[in-house]
Amino acid sequence: MSTRAGIVVTGTEVLTGRVADRNGPWLAEQLRLLGVDVGHVVVVGDRPEDLRDALGFLAGTGVPLVITSGGLGPTADDLTAEVVGQFQGRPSQVDAELEQRIGAVVARLVARRGWRADPASLASGTRKQALVPEGATVLEPVGTAPGLVVPPADGRTGPVVLVLPGPPSELQAMWSAAVAAAPVRQALAGREELRQETVRLWGTLESELAATLRDAGPVLDGLEISTCLRDGELEIVTRFPPPAQPAYDHLVALLREHHGDTLFSTGPTLDELIAAAFADRGLTVATAESCTAGLLAARLTTRSGSSEWVLGGVAAYANSAKEELLGVPRELLDRHGAVSPEVAVAMAEGARARFGADVGIGITGIAGPGGGTPDKPVGTVHVSVVGPDGGESRALRLSGSRTVVRERSVTVAMQLLRALLLGGPPA
Amino acid sequence: MSTRAGIVVTGTEVLTGRVADRNGPWLAEQLRLLGVDVGHVVVVGDRPEDLRDALGFLAGTGVPLVITSGGLGPTADDLTAEVVGQFQGRPSQVDAELEQRIGAVVARLVARRGWRADPASLASGTRKQALVPEGATVLEPVGTAPGLVVPPADGRTGPVVLVLPGPPSELQAMWSAAVAAAPVRQALAGREELRQETVRLWGTLESELAATLRDAGPVLDGLEISTCLRDGELEIVTRFPPPAQPAYDHLVALLREHHGDTLFSTGPTLDELIAAAFADRGLTVATAESCTAGLLAARLTTRSGSSEWVLGGVAAYANSAKEELLGVPRELLDRHGAVSPEVAVAMAEGARARFGADVGIGITGIAGPGGGTPDKPVGTVHVSVVGPDGGESRALRLSGSRTVVRERSVTVAMQLLRALLLGGPPA
Repeated sequence: MSTRAGIVVTGTEVLTGRVADRNGPWLAEQLRLLGVDVGHVVVVGDRPEDLRDALGFLAGTGVPLVITSGGLGPTADDLTAEVVGQFQGRPSQVDAELEQRIGAVVARLVARRGWRADPASLASGTRKQALVPEGATVLEPVGTAPGLVVPPADGRTGPVVLVLPGPPSELQAMWSAAVAAAPVRQALAGREELRQETVRLWGTLESELAATLRDAGPVLDGLEISTCLRDGELEIVTRFPPPAQPAYDHLVALLREHHGDTLFSTGPTLDELIAAAFADRGLTVATAESCTAGLLAARLTTRSGSSEWVLGGVAAYANSAKEELLGVPRELLDRHGAVSPEVAVAMAEGARARFGADVGIGITGIAGPGGGTPDKPVGTVHVSVVGPDGGESRALRLSGSRTVVRERSVTVAMQLLRALLLGGPPA
Repeated sequence: MSTRAGIVVTGTEVLTGRVADRNGPWLAEQLRLLGVDVGHVVVVGDRPEDLRDALGFLAGTGVPLVITSGGLGPTADDLTAEVVGQFQGRPSQVDAELEQRIGAVVARLVARRGWRADPASLASGTRKQALVPEGATVLEPVGTAPGLVVPPADGRTGPVVLVLPGPPSELQAMWSAAVAAAPVRQALAGREELRQETVRLWGTLESELAATLRDAGPVLDGLEISTCLRDGELEIVTRFPPPAQPAYDHLVALLREHHGDTLFSTGPTLDELIAAAFADRGLTVATAESCTAGLLAARLTTRSGSSEWVLGGVAAYANSAKEELLGVPRELLDRHGAVSPEVAVAMAEGARARFGADVGIGITGIAGPGGGTPDKPVGTVHVSVVGPDGGESRALRLSGSRTVVRERSVTVAMQLLRALLLGGPPA
């Protein structure tokens, strides 16, 4: 087995879901790139005893490195540095020089934002953030919180604990200094490379895939295969040491043989495939969205450089907007209703025409929970993609919450776009 | 201390961040509503020994209930039911009647989607999903996976383990049956109510808030206060048993006294405040977005019923789209550039006019990472909100990734909208 690490994500706001954790996944991915596997991510609130329990659990799994994120702020509920210090047998003290450096950052921040701020309360917060366990390595703050590398006290055994701040931008900016610190490097010495590859299917059942893998037998030995059905896409992620590359090649051949009609990628995500296709072919796109109201446009522009090929879009919630901004004929709306294949096509064509784009996409539907009728229940969605050489449409009957219906509609539109631009499995 | 529970979220796809976990937070919130506190959420991959370790850890914290999500699918990496059965000392067997019911669901699913499917592989997946630990209570499948309530085997001690499927819609639909099951009710007997309240500030520093709380002293005893700075908003969440209500009232009075100029909510979220204001006042809104390209329109329409007051929006990435779909004068674009306060106002007014809305919102900026200049670096964003009685604009200089710049721009636009509709602290 490869070298492993454990992760603790702290914060009541993460535990209760008010904030989605981005640090656990990001750290797991960075560690993977270093050949380090993560077995557990433990999310804890702001109670010190819960953090201590989590550190104890991960130390007990025998990992040489534990990484924590969060709990380094100036408020009283931010206790990570102190708890980790105690856990490792290293009491904390104020680092006077660090205190000065943090104070300077805070002063700049307050000045730039033009905030009023009471000097005494700032100073007290700064002093708290400058508490460092004895013998720990300080990682220079990116925001106001320093990172810490805290090995076990002399004479103790156990993992090195790497303490990082909670804001993802600060944590990420501190990462290269963290892995360069001597105690972290020592903890991770002797790790071996682990490759990770992904195959993506659109339209195969998980149980069919399971049968393919079961029937394959020992030719797949050495591969750690995990499958995940997400937003209609079946994602097959395989991790393996380099000597198992032939087994992986065999797996891909098997998937092509049994599921070639749904296999649309042996690596890139759907969004990456579409971005590359637009860039390669010099085409442009515009969107016309009703129930998804901008979600597709926002998804198409998530990647930098998308301004080269995305001209824009219209979120046409009201019928008047469909008529006036997209040129959908009133008569079509009256005859077929706003949620109809005819209107989806007219919206796609309207987006093409109004933005002067090569490709237009129209989505119209009923996301719910209200607004359904016996004829057109909640989850009825029509998607149309029109390009220079014709188009493709789909009528959907989706189940799930408003959010699920909106997201799935966007994904189907992306799959239609992929099929139109690149061929391959139908959407 | 109140009754507590532990949560295990399974799946390599969650551990590695390919899928964001929605079940841990949802379960924590449901448990909170029942007066049950969650101390730890442990995320594990698909390795059975990691799941076993996590169950052992949570059992060791003394909780009477552990809930797992995921790992109930038909593929070989879905091992939760079997591992939990072993952990509780209850070997698994196929439940023949359950197998038939699952088989019927699978057959309907295949027929509806028009998928080809090999009967033998379907049957084998179905059999796997019908494996039930001896003596466990079966919760009827919503998709194809049943839930399970697995108490420790006779003569053993430890928590009841509630096993739920991974897809959030299935897990959520199964929840009421799960908490009604006798072993779960027994595990949670004797819990006490815990209230949770939230105060939201826009523009106060965390360290200033920390000083207010520190200075308050013992009048706040009995409150568990956690603060979180998220997307520029300082969120103060307090949990307390009912007898501490006077202490909480005191806290709110203190916050009004010291931070009244930034306190914009003692409960509802920003999005809820805005939705209520539009509904109350009978106004409508339309958006014009450049760098955020539909994110604001999508956020405004996340809630059902938003079609009453959102007319639509234009994502105008290209300058030609700004001219033709929003009527921004070419001359204005040439003179000030697309990223300028003048163009933000013209976009907001264009959206108002084109959609016939009462309120228009314009956002134009440089989300990066490319496209910055010395004059207008990445992170320069102009936001303008125009209503029937005038408007408000902000010039922003944001730092962070493309995603952070886009999301923060949308939040500032929402704060401007709130201030325009409801007054209160400036955005």
